[in-house]
Amino acid sequence: MPADALKCKECQTAYPLEARFVCERCFGPLEVSYSLPEGDPAALKRRIQAGPHTIWRYADFLPLQGPARSALPTGWTPLVKADRLAERLGLGELYIKNETANPTHSFKDRVVSVALARALELGFDTLACASTGNLANAVAAHAAAAGLPAYVLIPFDLEEPKILATGAYGAQIVAVRGNYDDVNRLCTEVSGERPNWAFVNINMRPYYAEGSKTLAFETVEQLGWELPDRIVGPIASGSQFTKIARGFQEFIDAGLVSGEVPKMNGAQAEGCSPVAKAFAEGHDVVRPVKPDTIAKSLAIGNPADGPYAIELARRTGGGIDAVTDDEIRAGVRLLAETTGIFTESAGGVTIATLAKLAARGDIGPDERVVAMVTGDGLKTIDVVRGTFEVTEIPASIDAFDSHFAPVAV
Amino acid sequence: MPADALKCKECQTAYPLEARFVCERCFGPLEVSYSLPEGDPAALKRRIQAGPHTIWRYADFLPLQGPARSALPTGWTPLVKADRLAERLGLGELYIKNETANPTHSFKDRVVSVALARALELGFDTLACASTGNLANAVAAHAAAAGLPAYVLIPFDLEEPKILATGAYGAQIVAVRGNYDDVNRLCTEVSGERPNWAFVNINMRPYYAEGSKTLAFETVEQLGWELPDRIVGPIASGSQFTKIARGFQEFIDAGLVSGEVPKMNGAQAEGCSPVAKAFAEGHDVVRPVKPDTIAKSLAIGNPADGPYAIELARRTGGGIDAVTDDEIRAGVRLLAETTGIFTESAGGVTIATLAKLAARGDIGPDERVVAMVTGDGLKTIDVVRGTFEVTEIPASIDAFDSHFAPVAV
Ligand SMILES: Cc1ncc(COP(=O)(O)O)c(C=O)c1O
Ligand SMILES: Cc1ncc(COP(=O)(O)O)c(C=O)c1O
Ligand SMILES: [Zn+2]
Ligand SMILES: [Zn+2]
Repeated sequence: MPADALKCKECQTAYPLEARFVCERCFGPLEVSYSLPEGDPAALKRRIQAGPHTIWRYADFLPLQGPARSALPTGWTPLVKADRLAERLGLGELYIKNETANPTHSFKDRVVSVALARALELGFDTLACASTGNLANAVAAHAAAAGLPAYVLIPFDLEEPKILATGAYGAQIVAVRGNYDDVNRLCTEVSGERPNWAFVNINMRPYYAEGSKTLAFETVEQLGWELPDRIVGPIASGSQFTKIARGFQEFIDAGLVSGEVPKMNGAQAEGCSPVAKAFAEGHDVVRPVKPDTIAKSLAIGNPADGPYAIELARRTGGGIDAVTDDEIRAGVRLLAETTGIFTESAGGVTIATLAKLAARGDIGPDERVVAMVTGDGLKTIDVVRGTFEVTEIPASIDAFDSHFAPVAV
Repeated sequence: MPADALKCKECQTAYPLEARFVCERCFGPLEVSYSLPEGDPAALKRRIQAGPHTIWRYADFLPLQGPARSALPTGWTPLVKADRLAERLGLGELYIKNETANPTHSFKDRVVSVALARALELGFDTLACASTGNLANAVAAHAAAAGLPAYVLIPFDLEEPKILATGAYGAQIVAVRGNYDDVNRLCTEVSGERPNWAFVNINMRPYYAEGSKTLAFETVEQLGWELPDRIVGPIASGSQFTKIARGFQEFIDAGLVSGEVPKMNGAQAEGCSPVAKAFAEGHDVVRPVKPDTIAKSLAIGNPADGPYAIELARRTGGGIDAVTDDEIRAGVRLLAETTGIFTESAGGVTIATLAKLAARGDIGPDERVVAMVTGDGLKTIDVVRGTFEVTEIPASIDAFDSHFAPVAV
C-alpha cells in the first residue's frame, strides 16, 4: 500500500513525503496518506503472514520507500488472554497487549523504528526527540543500534531509571528545566536550526505516528484476523490512541478483516487530563494544563492530537476517562497480581480506567476488550514502593516457621 | 521425545518422574532422561515450526506429560546480529541472544515456565524458590499469572528494583540475613517440611533445569537450523551453561542439525568465580567462596553444577573466565552503545568475558559466536549511575546552542 503523500488533516493539502509536519496553508498537522494496497486481500494476508515477526511484516501499511529492517527487532508483542483479571472485573473476554516485551520495554520502540527508518531514507545523520521518558529511551537505543548519535531532551524531573537507562546507550541527555510542553517547544526551535537532525516526534512526526498503527494490526492478526469490540488505551499527546483506530480502519479498507473500528476508550491521569476534561464537558478543543501526576510518561499538558482523540472517542461510542494517582497505583498492582505483567504508571492509568469502565457497567458481558499496556514497571519502580511487606528473617528454619506456620498434613 | 525417567548424573540410577532431585544411592543430582523422538527428523522439524512462538514449540524435548501452555508466554526471544559490536571487538560473526525480551526480562522465565507446568501436573499448589533476584521475579510473575501463591526467599541485600518488581506481583518475599548459599540451604530444609510447595530450583530442579535447553533450540532455529561455533554465557550455579550444551546435543542426536556442540565459554565475576578458578587451576571440583561482586544474580559461591560446567568447557575446547566489576560496568556500556541492548550486571559479565576472549585472540576470525545476554539493565540500574553526564539547561534555544553549537551549513 504505497504511501503517496503527506496530507494536511485539516485542509487536505498534499505535500511530498519529506521531513515536514505542518501545513503551510492552515498550520494543521500532516499525516501520511496511502493508495489502497495492490492485489487481492488474500494475497496481502499471505504476504503479511510470511513476513518477519516484527512491525515490518506490515510494510505495506508503513511509509517507507525501500525495504525496512531495524537493528533492534520491534513489535509482535504478546496479546495475552487475561482471564483472571477479567473475572476480577466481571468482564467477559479480555486481552492485554503486552508492550513491555519490546526492546526498550515500551510501545515507543514502534514509533522510533519507523521514524528512524524514514530518517535514514531522507538522509538525516542524527536522531533526536522531546520526551517524557520512554521515547528518550527508545531513541537512544535505536540510534545506538544503528550507529547514529542521539540527542534526547527531557523534563529535568524525570524518574531516575529512565534517565539511567537512556544514558547507558551513550545518548546526549539534555535535562530541561521545565515541563514536557517546554521541552517540546524548545525542540521545535532546535529542529529549525539543525537540518541534519531528525527529531522523531517533531519533523519526523508524520512517519513516527504511523508506527502505532502496528498495535492494531498485530491485535487483529493475533485475534485470528478478527476485530476486538473495544480498546482501552492511554492518551498523552493522543497520537497512539488515534493511530490505533486508523490501523483498524486501514485493515478494514484493505479487506483484511470485516466489521467496524472498535469503541475507543482513552485513559488519562487526573493530574494531567486535559483531553478527558474536554470530552466530559462536551468541548471539541482542549485547554492546556500544567501536569502533576505520577504517570509522568503521560504528562503532556498540551496534547497535539487531543481534538482528534475526542472526536474518535465520540464517533466510536467510546469515551475518555481520568483516574487518580491512587487508582493508578492500584491498577499497577491489580494487573501484576492477576496477569504476571508488571507495568509502569502509564499502564496503571489504562488498567484503572478499564476497572472504572467495568465498575460503571459500560462494558457489555459479550464484549471482547483489549487493553494497551504500553510501558514497563521497572521504569517507574517508585510506584510500588511501600505497597507490600518484606519479611526479614535470619537463615533458620525456626525463624521461617515462626513467620509462616507449616500446615499440618 | 517422551521424558521417561529421572536419572542420577553420577551413577545412572533411574527414578520415576516425580518431585525428586537427589539420588538415594550416591546423593548425585538427578536429571530428566528421554527416549529419542518418534518419526523422522523432517517431520519433527515441521512440528516444531508449526508450534507457538514460545518455548512450548520444543515440547518434544521438555519433560511434561500433557500439553503445556503458560499464562505468560515465554521464549522465542530475538537473536540479534551484532555487527557493530563484532567490529569493535575485531570479531567475525556475532549474535546476541536477547533474553531481556522475556516477560520478566531474564532467561529465568524459561526455567520457571517448565517447573511450574510440571509442578501443576504433579499436584503442587504453591510455588517457591531460593533466588539471587531474577528467579524470584519470574516465580512471582508466573505464579500470579497462574493464580498460585508464591514464596520467594532472597538474600536480604538484593538490589531494590528486583525486590520491588517481585513484591508487585503479590508474592510473599522472605529476605534472609545471609548470602545465596544460606538461602538455598534454608529452602532445602523448608522444602522437606512443605509437601505441597514446589520449590522450582530445589525439589523441581530437574524439570526447571530443562528450560534452559530452549536457549540452544532457539539459537539453532534462528540461525536457520545451523549450529554456532562458540557460546559465551554466564555461570552462577552452572545449570544454564550445562543445559545449553545439552540442548545442542539433543538437536544433534535427533537429527535436526549436524555438527558438534559449540565451544562453551563460561563467564563469572571475579568477586564470585569459584568455577573459573577451578578451571584455571585444572581442578575437577569447585571450592566454595563468599561472593562479593556487583553481579548479584551470579553470586552463587557454592555452585551445584560447577564440576559439570568445568568438564563441559574442557571437553568442547572452550573455557571459563572471570572479569572485574569495572570490566562488568564497561561490558554493560559497550553492549548498550553498540547494539541498543541494555543488560544487567550479569550480561556485563558475559560481554566483558567475550571482550577478553577477543582481545586474547581466542576467537577465530571465521567463528560464529553467540553471547547469551540473560538479564535486563533496568534491574541493576546502579551499575550505570555516574558513567555518563546529563546536561541540565533552562528551556531556551540560546542555552541549548551554548552547550551544543550548531554546525554551520
Ligand atoms: C508508556 C506510554 N504509553 C503511552 C504514551 C502515550 O503516547 P501518545 O503521546 O502517543 O498519546 C506514552 C507517551 O510517552 C508512553 O510513554
Ligand atoms: C541474569 C542471570 N543470568 C544467568 C544466571 C545463571 O544461572 P545458573 O544458576 O543457571 O548458572 C542467573 C542466575 O540467577 C541470572 O539471574
Ligand atoms: Zn492545511
Ligand atoms: Zn546416584
